[in-house]
Amino acid sequence: MNGADLLDRVRVVLSHTTHPGNIGATARAMKTMGVSRLYLINPKIFPAEEANARAAGAEDLLCAATVCASLDQALAGTVVAVACSGRHRDLSHPQLTPPEAAATLIDYAHDGEVALVFGTEMSGLTTAEVMKCRWLSRIPANPAYSSLNLAAAVQVMAYEMRNAAFAKAESGRASPAALSAGLRSGELASFDEIEMFYRQLEQKMIVIGFLDPANPKRLMQRMRRLFARSGLEKEEVNILRGILSAIK
Amino acid sequence: MNGADLLDRVRVVLSHTTHPGNIGATARAMKTMGVSRLYLINPKIFPAEEANARAAGAEDLLCAATVCASLDQALAGTVVAVACSGRHRDLSHPQLTPPEAAATLIDYAHDGEVALVFGTEMSGLTTAEVMKCRWLSRIPANPAYSSLNLAAAVQVMAYEMRNAAFAKAESGRASPAALSAGLRSGELASFDEIEMFYRQLEQKMIVIGFLDPANPKRLMQRMRRLFARSGLEKEEVNILRGILSAIK
Repeated sequence: MNGADLLDRVRVVLSHTTHPGNIGATARAMKTMGVSRLYLINPKIFPAEEANARAAGAEDLLCAATVCASLDQALAGTVVAVACSGRHRDLSHPQLTPPEAAATLIDYAHDGEVALVFGTEMSGLTTAEVMKCRWLSRIPANPAYSSLNLAAAVQVMAYEMRNAAFAKAESGRASPAALSAGLRSGELASFDEIEMFYRQLEQKMIVIGFLDPANPKRLMQRMRRLFARSGLEKEEVNILRGILSAIK
Repeated sequence: MNGADLLDRVRVVLSHTTHPGNIGATARAMKTMGVSRLYLINPKIFPAEEANARAAGAEDLLCAATVCASLDQALAGTVVAVACSGRHRDLSHPQLTPPEAAATLIDYAHDGEVALVFGTEMSGLTTAEVMKCRWLSRIPANPAYSSLNLAAAVQVMAYEMRNAAFAKAESGRASPAALSAGLRSGELASFDEIEMFYRQLEQKMIVIGFLDPANPKRLMQRMRRLFARSGLEKEEVNILRGILSAIK
């Protein structure tokens, strides 16, 4: 698969974008880097003239954009996602630098579609949104003024994706994904398959009295973190769900 | 000299900018990366309300901007400059990739002020302007649509400047150890703790009728492979064993 094919498997997901101008500028930023699959979760105003104006020749990406009602919909069918966030977060979600995130996503793009997820302009991604992504990536910034414009952040990440997609052929070094693939043998489970497993796991832990829905603590977050590290395969998800179904 | 001091010696020069919004967005892009010295050569409209609006907290850079009549004025006192241009040029000006350009400028920043020079929105830098710079740098882009927005191009170059200024000997690609370390926060479980978990898991799968001891297939091997990939922590083993214990 060549660099352009790999970039064709990259989704850019914008959650709850307030300003249509940012959606247009994002489309332009994506297209300059050869990334074209735009997903919009509940945009405040879309379609919009301002989006078309700022797209400046990338209106085709806006026309082809997929508008979704939830992050689950936007990630359905992807194999991995990176949450892009400028906020410092206390929960210890696995973090990658932008070049690391790009190299990792491009590696996984050989297996299926991958996603970069961006939050709303004012407050970024919610914790619940971050928890649905495998990694977190933060663009290094001036601590005294770290708020990149949304489309500017997309530009930097898309630039790194292009670097990674076209660098692959030259690098003789084994990538992290390739290395962990040594422990892997089958097809990766998709986002939605894994989410269904998590729902069933949570439900069953309530049934057996291990999880108190009134006081869940961070049990599901811990479980997500554990299984995120392993990079579940389809068949493994089937086995795990079979085990859960067998519990009465 | 530390990273912030080096970035303090970086000028961003915009030549003949048409849209004041781009000047404001450039100020924001610069400030997020810790670059603050903005030089404007004959801007079409400046100062402007639209510039202030798009600066979104970086108006201080606009107030401190130096308006010049020529590139010579804007580069006065600098030691080297890089021309940033998306156009392919037949003149054989020495070219650097963005990370090379950033690393080179940051090296020279130890000696004095350095500059990144950007042309007008429609046609970029003139040949005469490029000839006044020591190097040319081009952000790699989609050949079918290579026109980055001016402020987006500044964002990418300023991002690379920050990376170079704060560079620690990093390869860009996450090492496998770094990748799994990011995913982990607690103390790793010991071999025997994990073995006890596997025994309990196997036992419970038999109890619930999911595993037939007469025909176990390779179920436990598969489970071992999955959890081996994740590198279980002590507390995770405790949680998993707690779940198994709660299954009656």
